[in-house]
Amino acid sequence: MEPIRVMINGLPGNMSQVVLRHALRDSRFTLLPYSLTGPEITDPEFRQEGQTIQLLHPDDRDEAIGEIRSSAGDFISIDFTHPSAVNDNAVFYCSNALPFVMGTTGGDRKKLEASVTASSIAAVIAPNMAKQIVGFQAMMEYAANTFPKLFEGYTLAVKESHQQGKADTSGTAKAMVKYFNALGTPFKEEDIVKERDPENQQNRWGIPAGYLRGHGWHTYSLLSADQTVRFEFTHNVNGREIYAGGTLDAVVFLHKKLAQGASGKTFTMIDVLTGA
Amino acid sequence: MEPIRVMINGLPGNMSQVVLRHALRDSRFTLLPYSLTGPEITDPEFRQEGQTIQLLHPDDRDEAIGEIRSSAGDFISIDFTHPSAVNDNAVFYCSNALPFVMGTTGGDRKKLEASVTASSIAAVIAPNMAKQIVGFQAMMEYAANTFPKLFEGYTLAVKESHQQGKADTSGTAKAMVKYFNALGTPFKEEDIVKERDPENQQNRWGIPAGYLRGHGWHTYSLLSADQTVRFEFTHNVNGREIYAGGTLDAVVFLHKKLAQGASGKTFTMIDVLTGA
Repeated sequence: MEPIRVMINGLPGNMSQVVLRHALRDSRFTLLPYSLTGPEITDPEFRQEGQTIQLLHPDDRDEAIGEIRSSAGDFISIDFTHPSAVNDNAVFYCSNALPFVMGTTGGDRKKLEASVTASSIAAVIAPNMAKQIVGFQAMMEYAANTFPKLFEGYTLAVKESHQQGKADTSGTAKAMVKYFNALGTPFKEEDIVKERDPENQQNRWGIPAGYLRGHGWHTYSLLSADQTVRFEFTHNVNGREIYAGGTLDAVVFLHKKLAQGASGKTFTMIDVLTGA
Repeated sequence: MEPIRVMINGLPGNMSQVVLRHALRDSRFTLLPYSLTGPEITDPEFRQEGQTIQLLHPDDRDEAIGEIRSSAGDFISIDFTHPSAVNDNAVFYCSNALPFVMGTTGGDRKKLEASVTASSIAAVIAPNMAKQIVGFQAMMEYAANTFPKLFEGYTLAVKESHQQGKADTSGTAKAMVKYFNALGTPFKEEDIVKERDPENQQNRWGIPAGYLRGHGWHTYSLLSADQTVRFEFTHNVNGREIYAGGTLDAVVFLHKKLAQGASGKTFTMIDVLTGA
């Protein structure tokens, strides 16, 4: 198979760098040496492993894209930029007929979807690119729909740890709480135990020092009313590698869908997982 | 609602005693003072909390059952007897038009099902009466069918602990391994780590001393190829209370199905969970 051409937008952001590193090592892809970047970035280019990637600022991108398209042909854009750029970038992709994988969270998600639906392109849009976590959420959703009240009488405890800078509660944990509620365990989002202290993370949780600045650990515990039965589900992610794998699989999926003529359509990670 | 009449067979066996204790405290049920027992039991009766239950030996049961039926009316039999008695008991239930909940494992399961199908009665047949564990198995089966290879590249570890007397590997653990195989992690049943040593159970696993003689603890761990992601699923059962709860819910379910005219039909715990 001919490699799929990709443009990774959001460099020099952390998540874009991880995806870049993976894409460079993956024979399924060829990298376009350009990346959309934010207005606050002053560097004209980004270098990694001998590659020089030209950073396109918002003011330059309209002019540049025509030339890139005519020289590179069709390609898929990967977006790990900034919540404030989500909708503007989507409009840019749609009006330039650039299919994309959107890993950036935030923005107006309905508007984002509507942009694609009204366009000639297709996109994968996912707030979480970690395939195994998305799959586990789907398992929980299945149980909540199929066996409501299965855990009636059980007490739920939820704890999560993320890097010190993360102010809000884990979105994954909040989504899981909804499933557990449907399964019969009353629990409020406010009762999620959030750990943000690096010392506790290292000493009490056992999180490796190298990942204190980038991790997402989650544990859900269920205890029966008579305390004789305990269920526990844990998913601990160190670093950002898992998201890169899912992102690149989403690119391959989207490439297949485009070849099949997909147009004006958005896909989720569940679609990517099932290959549907 | 009028209480459901139940006969608990298998006294003085451990599991029958637990079900008996729960049934006596549950206003949904009325107990018939009889219990089928094995040929090796010499006691004529079993006493619990002021109740005297007459033990019916294989030689006496045919004669006794006619009288019980004519005085007690319709009732549901609960079977926690012995693997060697499964098929013979099923034939007895079927030929006497006694609907039953079969919690006893072993025997010829196809023959067991065929007996019911050819009869006028209905039955719930389940190797595991713990609703939450059955529900979790169904989640795993759903994932295995819907997202094959989801955990490709991950390494699986499975460990289980049961009371010292249990010689074989946990049937639940073996069933789970099949699902994990479908999810892309190669693993053999022989690689399940079995703990049967009470000292290790207490000191390394933290199993309470009071449950060393009756527990089932299971942990499944998945580690990604690059070791950055860990998933862990645990279900720890102390004692046998969880099975009694599921058994009595199965009786209520069967009672409803019989009222709806079910005949020649077998149901599983999944049917009980979904109420289907």
